[in-house]
Amino acid sequence: MATLIVNGTLVTASESFRADLRIDGEKISHIGHDLRREPTDTIVDATGLLVMPGGIDAHTHLDLPVGATRASDDFESGTRAAAFGGTTSVIDFVSPARGDSLLGALDTWQALARGKACIDYGLHMSLVDERPETFAELDAVLDAGIPTFKIYTAYPDTLMISDGAILRLLNWSARRGALVLAHAENGGAIAELTRTLANEGKLAPRHHADSRPAILEGEATSRLIALAEVVDAPLYIVHVTCIEALEAIRSAQRRGIDIYAETCPHYLFLSEESLRAPDFEGAKFVCSPPLRPRNHAQKLWQALALGDIEVVATDHCPFNFHGQKDLGRDDFRKIPNGLPGIETRLTLLWQGVVEKRITPNRFVDIVATAPARIHGLCPRKGVLAPGTDADIVLWDPEREVRLDAARLHMRVDYSPYEGMTVRGGPAKVFSRGECVVDGDEFLGKPGRGQFLRRAPTQ
Amino acid sequence: MATLIVNGTLVTASESFRADLRIDGEKISHIGHDLRREPTDTIVDATGLLVMPGGIDAHTHLDLPVGATRASDDFESGTRAAAFGGTTSVIDFVSPARGDSLLGALDTWQALARGKACIDYGLHMSLVDERPETFAELDAVLDAGIPTFKIYTAYPDTLMISDGAILRLLNWSARRGALVLAHAENGGAIAELTRTLANEGKLAPRHHADSRPAILEGEATSRLIALAEVVDAPLYIVHVTCIEALEAIRSAQRRGIDIYAETCPHYLFLSEESLRAPDFEGAKFVCSPPLRPRNHAQKLWQALALGDIEVVATDHCPFNFHGQKDLGRDDFRKIPNGLPGIETRLTLLWQGVVEKRITPNRFVDIVATAPARIHGLCPRKGVLAPGTDADIVLWDPEREVRLDAARLHMRVDYSPYEGMTVRGGPAKVFSRGECVVDGDEFLGKPGRGQFLRRAPTQ
Amino acid sequence: MATLIVNGTLVTASESFRADLRIDGEKISHIGHDLRREPTDTIVDATGLLVMPGGIDAHTHLDLPVGATRASDDFESGTRAAAFGGTTSVIDFVSPARGDSLLGALDTWQALARGKACIDYGLHMSLVDERPETFAELDAVLDAGIPTFKIYTAYPDTLMISDGAILRLLNWSARRGALVLAHAENGGAIAELTRTLANEGKLAPRHHADSRPAILEGEATSRLIALAEVVDAPLYIVHVTCIEALEAIRSAQRRGIDIYAETCPHYLFLSEESLRAPDFEGAKFVCSPPLRPRNHAQKLWQALALGDIEVVATDHCPFNFHGQKDLGRDDFRKIPNGLPGIETRLTLLWQGVVEKRITPNRFVDIVATAPARIHGLCPRKGVLAPGTDADIVLWDPEREVRLDAARLHMRVDYSPYEGMTVRGGPAKVFSRGECVVDGDEFLGKPGRGQFLRRAPTQ
Amino acid sequence: MATLIVNGTLVTASESFRADLRIDGEKISHIGHDLRREPTDTIVDATGLLVMPGGIDAHTHLDLPVGATRASDDFESGTRAAAFGGTTSVIDFVSPARGDSLLGALDTWQALARGKACIDYGLHMSLVDERPETFAELDAVLDAGIPTFKIYTAYPDTLMISDGAILRLLNWSARRGALVLAHAENGGAIAELTRTLANEGKLAPRHHADSRPAILEGEATSRLIALAEVVDAPLYIVHVTCIEALEAIRSAQRRGIDIYAETCPHYLFLSEESLRAPDFEGAKFVCSPPLRPRNHAQKLWQALALGDIEVVATDHCPFNFHGQKDLGRDDFRKIPNGLPGIETRLTLLWQGVVEKRITPNRFVDIVATAPARIHGLCPRKGVLAPGTDADIVLWDPEREVRLDAARLHMRVDYSPYEGMTVRGGPAKVFSRGECVVDGDEFLGKPGRGQFLRRAPTQ
Repeated sequence: MATLIVNGTLVTASESFRADLRIDGEKISHIGHDLRREPTDTIVDATGLLVMPGGIDAHTHLDLPVGATRASDDFESGTRAAAFGGTTSVIDFVSPARGDSLLGALDTWQALARGKACIDYGLHMSLVDERPETFAELDAVLDAGIPTFKIYTAYPDTLMISDGAILRLLNWSARRGALVLAHAENGGAIAELTRTLANEGKLAPRHHADSRPAILEGEATSRLIALAEVVDAPLYIVHVTCIEALEAIRSAQRRGIDIYAETCPHYLFLSEESLRAPDFEGAKFVCSPPLRPRNHAQKLWQALALGDIEVVATDHCPFNFHGQKDLGRDDFRKIPNGLPGIETRLTLLWQGVVEKRITPNRFVDIVATAPARIHGLCPRKGVLAPGTDADIVLWDPEREVRLDAARLHMRVDYSPYEGMTVRGGPAKVFSRGECVVDGDEFLGKPGRGQFLRRAPTQ
Repeated sequence: MATLIVNGTLVTASESFRADLRIDGEKISHIGHDLRREPTDTIVDATGLLVMPGGIDAHTHLDLPVGATRASDDFESGTRAAAFGGTTSVIDFVSPARGDSLLGALDTWQALARGKACIDYGLHMSLVDERPETFAELDAVLDAGIPTFKIYTAYPDTLMISDGAILRLLNWSARRGALVLAHAENGGAIAELTRTLANEGKLAPRHHADSRPAILEGEATSRLIALAEVVDAPLYIVHVTCIEALEAIRSAQRRGIDIYAETCPHYLFLSEESLRAPDFEGAKFVCSPPLRPRNHAQKLWQALALGDIEVVATDHCPFNFHGQKDLGRDDFRKIPNGLPGIETRLTLLWQGVVEKRITPNRFVDIVATAPARIHGLCPRKGVLAPGTDADIVLWDPEREVRLDAARLHMRVDYSPYEGMTVRGGPAKVFSRGECVVDGDEFLGKPGRGQFLRRAPTQ
Repeated sequence: MATLIVNGTLVTASESFRADLRIDGEKISHIGHDLRREPTDTIVDATGLLVMPGGIDAHTHLDLPVGATRASDDFESGTRAAAFGGTTSVIDFVSPARGDSLLGALDTWQALARGKACIDYGLHMSLVDERPETFAELDAVLDAGIPTFKIYTAYPDTLMISDGAILRLLNWSARRGALVLAHAENGGAIAELTRTLANEGKLAPRHHADSRPAILEGEATSRLIALAEVVDAPLYIVHVTCIEALEAIRSAQRRGIDIYAETCPHYLFLSEESLRAPDFEGAKFVCSPPLRPRNHAQKLWQALALGDIEVVATDHCPFNFHGQKDLGRDDFRKIPNGLPGIETRLTLLWQGVVEKRITPNRFVDIVATAPARIHGLCPRKGVLAPGTDADIVLWDPEREVRLDAARLHMRVDYSPYEGMTVRGGPAKVFSRGECVVDGDEFLGKPGRGQFLRRAPTQ
Repeated sequence: MATLIVNGTLVTASESFRADLRIDGEKISHIGHDLRREPTDTIVDATGLLVMPGGIDAHTHLDLPVGATRASDDFESGTRAAAFGGTTSVIDFVSPARGDSLLGALDTWQALARGKACIDYGLHMSLVDERPETFAELDAVLDAGIPTFKIYTAYPDTLMISDGAILRLLNWSARRGALVLAHAENGGAIAELTRTLANEGKLAPRHHADSRPAILEGEATSRLIALAEVVDAPLYIVHVTCIEALEAIRSAQRRGIDIYAETCPHYLFLSEESLRAPDFEGAKFVCSPPLRPRNHAQKLWQALALGDIEVVATDHCPFNFHGQKDLGRDDFRKIPNGLPGIETRLTLLWQGVVEKRITPNRFVDIVATAPARIHGLCPRKGVLAPGTDADIVLWDPEREVRLDAARLHMRVDYSPYEGMTVRGGPAKVFSRGECVVDGDEFLGKPGRGQFLRRAPTQ
């Protein structure tokens, strides 16, 4: 009753080799040549395919309430789309409002996921106010299996906390082995620029990018690194988009500071030019930080190749063009920020392999092994090793994938990559030993996904 | 009735040459050899002396109210001490409290100076709140002859304004030709570190430095530069103390941003070791930013030599050890911050010439010509040229100067350099043609100093 | 008749996991839990041990003729000592003299190795003259299984070739998929400094380091990188020792140039202070580039952790203190350059794991996986994967290893680490499935080592 | 019989002010207001004009033999053209061939200048071989008034000396107070690239630039700086053209090394695109180092503004298009390298003032004061001060200057700036008190120029 994946090429974060792989129950049990077969075993022929650990998307926002609306994918539609794309775990964000209890918000998010998640999921905790009561809950959150805490230097009215509070959190995290994740943009300066743009009547989608220049992402990144350095705490910068931030990160890494960086596919493949699309279609590309001029992407690819950026996640936060994005038709400040991406992450990043920017091993590290290691999912997830969860993707490097909304499974009425065809995609996807995706067919069940309780990361 | 200074070596910011100099009334009229003499002329023999423009101290706090006390020098004692040290102009800070009218505070400061100043003085304006009323006064302040505006990223309870407000001010300054001066330390983070130190009972003077690490000065400097870059405004960083800030400044200058930097003699000559002096004497050295480890000073000297730092000012803000500094005997948070220095600036910086770190020309640029140019006093002050104010110091490079409090003229009961003897000091000092200092004798009168109305600097 | 290694923890360059491993013949066949066992199988209990790929030492000089003497280890003693240390492959240098045929020299080196090597070995080719005949042999050398070519910017009288010739070689290598390895020191400047030191009678061992300052290694490294950049060729810098070289390498990597770097254990553990040892004992530490001041080592460790330096090799080139090193008793120019190290590489680098500078996975990458990948031994060597050579070390992290010459197996009368005890060493070593080292016992036979024919590396 | 320049604005390297200036004989005697006038005095009305020190061109090649031809300007035509452009001193290069005596070559060059020079001239000495006899002459050359020595890392067949010899020279210069000037390109690599281009038949003018990429200038600059750093000698890099070199220079200056840099007007105003001009006209722009892509010039301007580059000289080395440049019609290797420029330096650099890249004071520093200081002409030349040579240019900022060959006075049949009109040029030029140029009229006499014996520079 085991499953054998035979004739494939196993690809790990450091090696590629021909071998067969045996799954017993939910776990990988053997890797080798001429593995024992029993009559009841299911044999999967992976000839011509790459056998890789399933992807881990460390940055998603499923069912996120934003103002009067919600991200259009919930845990069911979102995790199903993720699985179609080769991702077998997500880590979503518990997103309390100011004044909310953290543990209360955790309950809320567990309720959003329960019965719906098609693949395993973990949760990060966002910290959006500085009340002593909020800080008092940190230990309990950590004990609940959540060792990663997100803060914002942007959105002063709703999410931003002060530098002093960030320093307090970093100090606590360094002592407890937790990891702080940071959204790095200077929210105060952005508010001032936004005010000026609004006064000048500059409210089209492209001005959203004008209100959040790369310099202000670089600034906040440098600032966060300085705060981490003061208390010797590790720090993870989410969705790095620009050269300015990258240089701050590299400089810190080279002087011995423990800084991790993440970027997203849209920063690798799109540019601010998309914001100028006519008929308000630029709104489809409004996210924060915004898309940047083209030259930034090349440097992000280089940083991925060298390991200066270690993770590609999606910041998946989809809104329909009709009915959601168009709330901001006359005013970019009312456009819900966010792009869909949970399904297309692996296939997009694979283009870096096609174009020889990164090796297949580096690909595996970026989409699975590194996020597992950094976010506390090792050794259960992110690797191909006996004893670990059989989260496996059989990757067909020759598969053509059209990135049109009509072909994809995310619950959103557009695709940022409409009309684009790429090479390389999943043939089959296994989650804890169960084949949940077979080509275009979804075989999993909502609710089968388990909560991933994580331990301190260091 | 003119004055001729003969047989000296004139030293300007770019040249040194033997020549005589004639003063007619308040102005320099001639420079040359064999100048015409009339019987009524006063002849000053400058054999063996250097003839230099009088120093300009662009950063003083005379009579500054700080909590329940005041800086111990007022405009009379302070400007007299300045003159003894070879400084012939100061620019002090109008320092309103939050909620005060800027123009009202300007009146207050003019009243503090009126009838007292022994040398000419200008005023900077501090901006310590973000009320629309405050911003509404900016144009009027500029029109009143004050084109330089100071902001703080430190002291959140009293002086700090937000990044958004700083951006607004920079934007205004870029359009109006004003210049923003910035105190760069991360006040929020410092408050958090201070809280932690206090909780741990670490309240001795040396912990003042622990609460304000160099990393947080570097951070705020980078942040301010980013804000200036966003709106393409020039920016002047006051009292740079550390390598971290210096690297941010250099990097900005090299990518074409208009950044000026100032340091102070105490950052060039003292180090954080002084804070460990026994019997609470470390309090004598408590200032903000704090003194740094020794290796920082060497880099500051190098930056002065290369022009990356353009100005040495004093941040003169003296408090008596007995009765003022000792308010914080049990708690560094209660020690008034500040050091005396208005009198010793030139003689200390001259040691850089003695030790061949800088040339005599660079010395003149740093203490006089550059501050005049940057702060809008050119061409009236800061140079030796016909038609300019006859603010002149006859410098005796062989004079021995003891830096003991008993020998100095500042109204403060200690000297940070007690026991130190240096070489090089003023023999005579002229202010607008009048010899106000002759050796150890003061010849000027309180109230003879004039307000220096300055025009936009760019 | 297979071998099963059971109960160990497998450590690869990216992962650590509990699993058993089966060896069939010379190859790894299975990795997993509850592997099939046959009665004839040998069971090796690896409880408490780490199972890692055998080390690959990419830089050795066995039996090297140097002037009138030879390196004291030949292929037999050297490869046996390597195996004792956990190394299962070496890559030695074919070292023709100027004017020698490359293919002829290859025959010579094959003869030195044949019948002696106890483990597998590859060969690099040195290029020490610029004759057209020499360049004409390059293709044939590549076809003979040697895709790596070494050049020197030092030793003008014997080994150095001109920048023009280096550029020619780089150009050829870029087209053919070969890789140039470079010794980076400015030989001309070193000769001039040596001449000056000799004129001043400064001929003690420590002056060897004075003649080869770090600045001149940094210079040559920058120069080689520039040459590689001009023709877009990859480049591998051997034995990087200093911050100056490291900064040139990092800067190149970050601007997208394909630069690999290697360092050696002695640059990580020793410093130039050793050269001052009394009684001429400093000579024991004379190598080129020389040992550096202590602060350099810390930066090398950091670069290893971050992947800026990818390989640690030994540059093993031992000479006895008595009879060889002491040829230079009166003149450092006569001291044969080189240190023993082939046996102690893994155990020394493991201290980085003990001190938490690097992870066990990074350790495996540095000593085995990266050298295999860069030098063209993948996938046969350097990884733990079914189908690859069963070159395996069972690592005992608790083993105490004394680094005294009397305890080690290298044929040299001293140890640079005499008196030092470290933690972590091999318990058993397998080479192509054969257990060649079991604790302190050597079970292999001279001549069993095979020549590793390598293909172009890119 | 004095000359009074009245109503002008004096501009020095640090100041601008309204004043009159009196010349007595060959020297400036007075600067001031209402200067004494005698009936015999000549009064020059400088209303609307700037009064500046005459330019100093620190890099010219008059009458230089190059292969079978010579630079087309000799000391008479070249210095007259210089004067027309506002330059009142040149420093030319004594250029011995390999094997020539330095002192013998000095005699030759003095003979070339004698009776011809229209303005004062100094001489640098080139060192193009490494014979002991050559080094033995250095002290005598220094005693002959030549403290500046040029070396080449390019032109291996004729001019280049080895790194070891350069180090020897730097060492000597540091002890004697001499200054080494360096042409920084990697000659060996260039020869190899040239060979490759020739093999491929790429011999048009534009391939001259392909043979000498910016990377190889950056390389040689870094290398020379490293050599200077080893022996703590100052170093002057001639004709810096590119970002790569600039970054090496800046990095060195910031770590405290005494590096001076010079660039030339053609690198500020022209780009490699000119080399693609049809009908072989690209040859008019062939010089070494070659013109670079446009983005380099912007960085050079920025470096001039900041003082990282201190001098603009011309490397004036003109060849007629017909009869000289066209020797290389079929082969760029036969095109004599060099551009005319001695006359147009000031007017071109003044465009930086017009475009607000630099201030008028910085202009004066770059064209006169800094070259005088660095090359040992201070205080006699380069400043406006009583007692110094009355080398003065009255600059008309409104004058329109057409840069056509027909309008210029250099003896060469083309202008690199043909058709270009700029604003700002000399109205009158004084050399040692004598008005040698008045508008379009030359009033000086060949032979009136004096040799400038210079003392050690440090």
